[in-house]
Amino acid sequence: MIDAALRDTGAAVDRMLDALLPPPSGPQARLFEAMRYAVLGGGKRLRPCLTVFTADLFGVARVHALRAGAAVEMIHAYSLVHDDLPAMDDDDLRRGQPTVHIRFDEATAILAGDTLLTLAFEVLADPQTHPDPAVRSELVRLLAVAAGGQGMAGGQMIDLMAEQSDLAEADIRSLQALKTGAMLAVSCTLGAVLGQGTAAERAALDGFGRDIGAAFQIADDLLDVEGDAAAMGKAAGKDAAAGKKTLVGLWGVDRARKEAYALADRAVARLDSFGAPAETLRAVAQRVVNRQN
Amino acid sequence: MIDAALRDTGAAVDRMLDALLPPPSGPQARLFEAMRYAVLGGGKRLRPCLTVFTADLFGVARVHALRAGAAVEMIHAYSLVHDDLPAMDDDDLRRGQPTVHIRFDEATAILAGDTLLTLAFEVLADPQTHPDPAVRSELVRLLAVAAGGQGMAGGQMIDLMAEQSDLAEADIRSLQALKTGAMLAVSCTLGAVLGQGTAAERAALDGFGRDIGAAFQIADDLLDVEGDAAAMGKAAGKDAAAGKKTLVGLWGVDRARKEAYALADRAVARLDSFGAPAETLRAVAQRVVNRQN
Repeated sequence: MIDAALRDTGAAVDRMLDALLPPPSGPQARLFEAMRYAVLGGGKRLRPCLTVFTADLFGVARVHALRAGAAVEMIHAYSLVHDDLPAMDDDDLRRGQPTVHIRFDEATAILAGDTLLTLAFEVLADPQTHPDPAVRSELVRLLAVAAGGQGMAGGQMIDLMAEQSDLAEADIRSLQALKTGAMLAVSCTLGAVLGQGTAAERAALDGFGRDIGAAFQIADDLLDVEGDAAAMGKAAGKDAAAGKKTLVGLWGVDRARKEAYALADRAVARLDSFGAPAETLRAVAQRVVNRQN
Repeated sequence: MIDAALRDTGAAVDRMLDALLPPPSGPQARLFEAMRYAVLGGGKRLRPCLTVFTADLFGVARVHALRAGAAVEMIHAYSLVHDDLPAMDDDDLRRGQPTVHIRFDEATAILAGDTLLTLAFEVLADPQTHPDPAVRSELVRLLAVAAGGQGMAGGQMIDLMAEQSDLAEADIRSLQALKTGAMLAVSCTLGAVLGQGTAAERAALDGFGRDIGAAFQIADDLLDVEGDAAAMGKAAGKDAAAGKKTLVGLWGVDRARKEAYALADRAVARLDSFGAPAETLRAVAQRVVNRQN
């Protein structure tokens, strides 16, 4: 059920991304090819699905939700392209395929990331994303905060520095809250902004996003310890080999799994006021902690 | 006169940038230090001055114009940080100082650029930049278009590829129109957006910005051929040594200087309908072709 909903919505997101990305032509065709390679090469589309499913709570037009979700996915894709660079995490493979700087070159990868980041804001500010400019402006502001120095980019900076030092549990939690939590939370709150929900509704969906973000990260780290490399499309045990501190490393597998389930339960409880229409979101929370890849 | 206006407005832009950039504290302090180093290390502030001077034509509140100008300057600064990277132009010095990846490291430089780009849109979308959300949304959209694949980033992609091939005059012109012209043009149109000017006023200022952008680029290339390295803070003759194609290389110094003056004259003529209040902008156009650094 939820797998079908994620697959169908993910396919709709893919079609929207294909329509929003520039066609690979003109003198800068190489840039557009690299952007398309970075974005259209697969991925679970979890973030844009969250935007669509939260927007559905408010009856938002599908095209508006898909455009906002596509913008979120562009930011996610840019962050992967830049994180994979030699100066950052130096990864040659992503989802079993050569990373952008391997397939193209470093300069093109840097520019493709920059241009995806820029295009995300162009898409959100376009009247086609919502007729009310107050909604568009708020979409831009919230996504910029989540992606910026007090969000994802700040988390990546802390992560880069942390590899050389010891991290306590609280440090790991706050790092992950920035690096992955902020973007998952904003994926959910954008739906409430599109739907012009109340402050309480927005706060509930923000909390839901933060909880599943934390659960998602633990599940990711569990997969790294226990997962099947073929199913994941990347090497297992990479975190430990890289000396990366995770909550799974700190807690052990059993406690980590329990904490992930507790986070998913708390996320589900935050949706109580939305009643039956939030069933898809509840299923996503459960799916996040039960994933195999 | 115009030098004093540029200096005073530039100082006000610097103060606004200092207020908008995050203080260098917290676990991601290194990121914020690098952003501040990239932005606050000098520069002529031509682009934000253009935003302020065009906004003045419409009586826009100074704080609104300075915030929009600061956002433009953040985008300009991010582009310099990324262009200077080893994988791009590989420059160790900028304005006589170590570039960001030399003073910090490559990963920090990539992230600082990303975060400046993101912060620019956060600033524009903030209600403090303008009370009307339609204005804020349009500021975001226009700046994203100018900085993106059909603007500055697209121009940088073409420039990177062009170094290995022959460029005709039309190619050089269109490359420069993207790489530097689009951002100079949007610096001017943002003033008209803030002032809720007519489409004709916006088009006149866009044309003004494109013309002085083209004139600015020729003046820059003339300085590279003839300039005093000490006044510029970078080595003269660098373009020719790098095999970079410029209009000055194609035309020779005398014709290039004439073309730059003709572009400045055309830019000035575009301001006729604004009358006496556009005197500062006219002086900027003349200053651009008469600069020594």
